[in-house]
Amino acid sequence: MDLGDRVLVERNGISYEGVLMPSLRADHVVIKLKNGYNIGLRAKEIDIKLIEKGQDIKSKQLDRPLKEKPGLPTVSILSTGGTIASKVDYRTGAVTSQFSASEIISAIPELEEIANYRARVIYQILSENMRSEYWSALARAVAEEIQSGAEGVIITHGTDTMMYTAAALSFMLKTPVPVVLVGSQRSSDRPSSDASMNAICAATVATSDIAEVCVVMHGTTNDDYCAIHRGTRVRKMHTSRRDAFQTINQHPLGRVDYLSRKIETILSYRRRGEVELELKERLEPRCALVKYTPGSSPEIIHYYIDKAYRGIVLEGTGLGHVASDWIEGIARAKQENIPVVVTSQCLRGRICDRVYDTGRDMLQAGAIEGGDMLPEVALVKLMWVLANGPGEVGPLMKTPLAGEIALSTPITV
Amino acid sequence: MDLGDRVLVERNGISYEGVLMPSLRADHVVIKLKNGYNIGLRAKEIDIKLIEKGQDIKSKQLDRPLKEKPGLPTVSILSTGGTIASKVDYRTGAVTSQFSASEIISAIPELEEIANYRARVIYQILSENMRSEYWSALARAVAEEIQSGAEGVIITHGTDTMMYTAAALSFMLKTPVPVVLVGSQRSSDRPSSDASMNAICAATVATSDIAEVCVVMHGTTNDDYCAIHRGTRVRKMHTSRRDAFQTINQHPLGRVDYLSRKIETILSYRRRGEVELELKERLEPRCALVKYTPGSSPEIIHYYIDKAYRGIVLEGTGLGHVASDWIEGIARAKQENIPVVVTSQCLRGRICDRVYDTGRDMLQAGAIEGGDMLPEVALVKLMWVLANGPGEVGPLMKTPLAGEIALSTPITV
Repeated sequence: MDLGDRVLVERNGISYEGVLMPSLRADHVVIKLKNGYNIGLRAKEIDIKLIEKGQDIKSKQLDRPLKEKPGLPTVSILSTGGTIASKVDYRTGAVTSQFSASEIISAIPELEEIANYRARVIYQILSENMRSEYWSALARAVAEEIQSGAEGVIITHGTDTMMYTAAALSFMLKTPVPVVLVGSQRSSDRPSSDASMNAICAATVATSDIAEVCVVMHGTTNDDYCAIHRGTRVRKMHTSRRDAFQTINQHPLGRVDYLSRKIETILSYRRRGEVELELKERLEPRCALVKYTPGSSPEIIHYYIDKAYRGIVLEGTGLGHVASDWIEGIARAKQENIPVVVTSQCLRGRICDRVYDTGRDMLQAGAIEGGDMLPEVALVKLMWVLANGPGEVGPLMKTPLAGEIALSTPITV
Repeated sequence: MDLGDRVLVERNGISYEGVLMPSLRADHVVIKLKNGYNIGLRAKEIDIKLIEKGQDIKSKQLDRPLKEKPGLPTVSILSTGGTIASKVDYRTGAVTSQFSASEIISAIPELEEIANYRARVIYQILSENMRSEYWSALARAVAEEIQSGAEGVIITHGTDTMMYTAAALSFMLKTPVPVVLVGSQRSSDRPSSDASMNAICAATVATSDIAEVCVVMHGTTNDDYCAIHRGTRVRKMHTSRRDAFQTINQHPLGRVDYLSRKIETILSYRRRGEVELELKERLEPRCALVKYTPGSSPEIIHYYIDKAYRGIVLEGTGLGHVASDWIEGIARAKQENIPVVVTSQCLRGRICDRVYDTGRDMLQAGAIEGGDMLPEVALVKLMWVLANGPGEVGPLMKTPLAGEIALSTPITV
């Protein structure tokens, strides 16, 4: 049997009918079910029968070689895995989730009107397996593409940790061209799939004047527009909705109308060519995010200090608080030169540790106020600041480096 | 000088003018500034001068003894501290944050039209210092009030950890009368203060037919209505906005119109007298909430296992994922009979670990899917289930015990 074949699988008396998919594990068979979900089954536990041969993926791939269209800009597509890859494949009839430029364009012909493409597979992973070394390598790949002439870069990415990757690239790259992360929340065999529209809007932004790292995803549950989120301000706020991504504590950078492909910007932004390409991809991975809950033991701070972590982000309550018995741990971290940055589990709004006693004690102990930074973004920023400096960590954490923090937060967001 | 006096304080060449407030720490002086914020200053570092004598708080308190009005229901007010206490005080001219029933009613005369009150000060703490033992004692106090005839209970509480307390009381109490948590986001000397309206709406709910543990707070930034949130579904979603509290993954239980004091319910609810009072206030405090971030070390699970924790809630990415290298830790916890419950840092939407490989591996290792429970609520529930049972933890965590989890999540919330 080949990938793409329709098969019937039986295990423990239960039958599954679906399309044979590539598996990341040699001992597993993956089947895409009718409801659009993939299931993985241990090969040795199942009985598998062919129902119908699928399309020949390889010959299909060769059906439509990419034709260079003169006058269109060149965009690099870097793929890292995730639902968007498998969905695009599904539309083409190809069920491998490693895709080539011709495959994605076969699936979404509108893309051909927007740019010429070149593609590289960087990773083929579920995005929960991303880690800081991969962010650094991805930043290098983006820089290489720009150096070799890409006028825009699209990164396809699983949605689970897209916000972390977007934040990391935002700190690591000063880019003269757009760097757009895009993914999809629904696989393509569901009527509500978002991959096509997201990809088209991403290509539109990749060829625009917005030379920033941003995330382009559905702006509403309708297929009307995609939101353009600044890479340091975006968060996945729903497990499954198509409009799961939201800009927090700011307005989105802008939006792309799906039908007209017009971009409307809301915030000011860095324009194409405004800066030279600059890559600073080092990160200090030994940083921890600690979410405070009532009564939780302050020992956790000492644990990270003892384990030689270099920085800690606290996700406190309200304006940025932890219980009074945590203050001593913060003071010890300060003494051992380990910065402790305070953010809020409210996610929205600003830290202000000057209002109540606890906050003032935290500041006195050496805690650094995270302003209106998202906790996850503060973590990535701390990794970057510790590895790159220059200067003291505290003041740098409070200084906007890539739009991640502001002196005031609009009350209307 | 006395509390309530207007003073000028100087420290390191900076002057602060404001009203002298009670301090929770003997070595600190607390001043309420014109902008509404309190600052605390170490007594030994400052120079303090009287500008103007304040009102005599004690005699003011005695001005208006509470008169019992026949025909009105009896509501108990239990205070635990937080901004709402200090605000009410400010409106009366009293600046102590310990308030009596007569003080709160002097400040908000509308309350007298709604009920007769009796009041107990349970704690006088900032809510970030709440912990599970305090939740248990508070539940006992609520039960005592109900047993001795309270027809409704109002708990004034700091907003920082109100959601945790509300969840804890929801699991610990089966109540035949309303139990309403209320707080305020802004102190009373700001034009935008929310304490009065929140208190009036809370009293309205406390005398209503809604015999559940709920949170009553501003529903919008206007003074039009308060939302009634079920205690297990509410979350503080902004550090400072008056409408910071939101029901997640459900519609709010209902709302109270401020002017008409009419209650409009949206969900079905438990009615007054429907159940007998039942108190099960034990909790297992050795439970941890661990927020996963990309590349974070799975050692943290082993740390909590080694420290003899009895339960772990993971705040994973997306549909409920952690990196593959965390699976082994989950399996070890399972082996050592330590339940691991999976929730999502998206906050909105449901866990589904059957879609992708990682999730399926997590389930195989013994992880328990947290459905559409908030991570913080899953933590409190796990503490309660471990201490009270009866039965297996896994199935109980997936069973709605106090409206905290549902088999389906409305797509419109």
